[in-house]
Amino acid sequence: MPLAVITSLARPLLEGRLPAEISPLWFTTPEEMVRHAPDAEIGWFDAFGSAAMPDAVRSAANMRWLNTVAAGINHLPLQLMAERGTMLTNGAGLHAGTIAEYALLGMLTIAKGYRQVVRAQDRHEWLREPPGKGELAETSALIVGSGAIGGRIAHLLRAFDVQVTEVRRSSSQGALRPGEWQARLGEFDWVIMAVPSTPETRGLIGSAELRAMKRGAAILNFARGEVIETDALLAALDSGQLGAAFLDVTDPEPLPAEHPLWMYDNVHISMHLSGRSQDTIFQKGAERFLTNCRRFLAGEPLLHAVDLGAGY
Amino acid sequence: MPLAVITSLARPLLEGRLPAEISPLWFTTPEEMVRHAPDAEIGWFDAFGSAAMPDAVRSAANMRWLNTVAAGINHLPLQLMAERGTMLTNGAGLHAGTIAEYALLGMLTIAKGYRQVVRAQDRHEWLREPPGKGELAETSALIVGSGAIGGRIAHLLRAFDVQVTEVRRSSSQGALRPGEWQARLGEFDWVIMAVPSTPETRGLIGSAELRAMKRGAAILNFARGEVIETDALLAALDSGQLGAAFLDVTDPEPLPAEHPLWMYDNVHISMHLSGRSQDTIFQKGAERFLTNCRRFLAGEPLLHAVDLGAGY
Repeated sequence: MPLAVITSLARPLLEGRLPAEISPLWFTTPEEMVRHAPDAEIGWFDAFGSAAMPDAVRSAANMRWLNTVAAGINHLPLQLMAERGTMLTNGAGLHAGTIAEYALLGMLTIAKGYRQVVRAQDRHEWLREPPGKGELAETSALIVGSGAIGGRIAHLLRAFDVQVTEVRRSSSQGALRPGEWQARLGEFDWVIMAVPSTPETRGLIGSAELRAMKRGAAILNFARGEVIETDALLAALDSGQLGAAFLDVTDPEPLPAEHPLWMYDNVHISMHLSGRSQDTIFQKGAERFLTNCRRFLAGEPLLHAVDLGAGY
Repeated sequence: MPLAVITSLARPLLEGRLPAEISPLWFTTPEEMVRHAPDAEIGWFDAFGSAAMPDAVRSAANMRWLNTVAAGINHLPLQLMAERGTMLTNGAGLHAGTIAEYALLGMLTIAKGYRQVVRAQDRHEWLREPPGKGELAETSALIVGSGAIGGRIAHLLRAFDVQVTEVRRSSSQGALRPGEWQARLGEFDWVIMAVPSTPETRGLIGSAELRAMKRGAAILNFARGEVIETDALLAALDSGQLGAAFLDVTDPEPLPAEHPLWMYDNVHISMHLSGRSQDTIFQKGAERFLTNCRRFLAGEPLLHAVDLGAGY
């Protein structure tokens, strides 16, 4: 009878619905989580941000399966988990719709200069001239990252009559392969980063890539801060090469109050809120967890299992 | 050889392309516009906002055709034009894409509480919790107004998996007829006004309609301010009945600095900027004007001619 140590945030969604073979233990504090982790065969530890989870996982020597609703898992001790044979399922795709909505918000707010409209509202001032005259329609966008998030952004952008180019690992019509898009960067009004955070994607956008972009184009980052080299980004902003940056994620994160990225009028920072701007993630995650509980007991492969070597 | 008195803003787009039978006179100041108006058989007066145009039109006793890129024409002396037999063509549809993009921006900024994100950026503060957790996906929207703007908003919303109900004059599947939607107001998370400004649409949303809405739903106005009764709107905000209002247009307009509508944290005011947040309106308008020049000379009906009696 496997013991499952589960955040009490998921309790109302799971109680009475778990297979009888699984014995749940609900924790409500980080201390309880860490205390019970060594006994857990199954774990769902999301509850207190990403800070407490790695410690709990390190002490979970008997864990056979760890579940998380997060998409990014690079804060977890993946190598240790691989050595122990702990399977990891993540929330890949659960956030895609929410993040894609945020990406559209970011692009629209850049196009219309909406931040200046917000500031004028706060001054009770009726602007006479639009602070931004951009339209999404008839622009072109490159989406780097072929997962659920990038796919959903592409779907939305096509409705806006944006000409979308995707990057896909497998060859497919109209899409670019990894390694092909760098030479094409000068063609796009928008470059949207939605890759997983792995050693290979660290610094994917550096000074060469920023220089290769169309002058005045915008870059948006919904991947991880480290995907864009911050120093190169600052230089591209200072030179006027970049038209705008919309950064849901930054390096470092959180961004200290005195960090220069806050200072630019064409840099938009959304504080890693995009994926969390929803209240349905635990509902969606609970349904997936229940499906995986049945598969776990049946010895079937788990859905959305992470390749611990590849890191996504 | 008809004399056409045309804003010099359109000169680079029209010069050398007008039919030889039309003799252009380009004006660069409001005084020139008013001075030459009595001689004009054709007029394109857009240049100095809506203030100077009515006077010029009143003095244009020989005008056979007036063109404007504006969609709203209720500031013009329509009855006088009808008596004189002046035809009017407007910019209906030219703004649709731009306004629809703004409508999506409005809905997304409400859903994500983005105005608070903007304010936090200005404070250099990294928010820990998302100020809004709404998602467009799986919500329901009513679009009142069956023109190009409403249709384009419906198209975009469907890509976001919003369940869209349109109001159409003619019976069509899934759409409501005028007069039918009022009884259904309680079903929608979003009510989006995109009707033309006519005597019939004045006060279309009053206290009864606001009371009939789902509690906490949002209303967006991209029509004209007078379509929503301001006093009823303020009452619905005070009572908590309305979740949010996104007002591209207001009554009065511009909104005085001391007006109570500025004071609500769930009221968003975009200062009639939505249709003007583009720089392609004159390009699009010039193509339409050239087509209509040929039709005018051939004695054919003009495209996008306004019914001066109906007012749209």
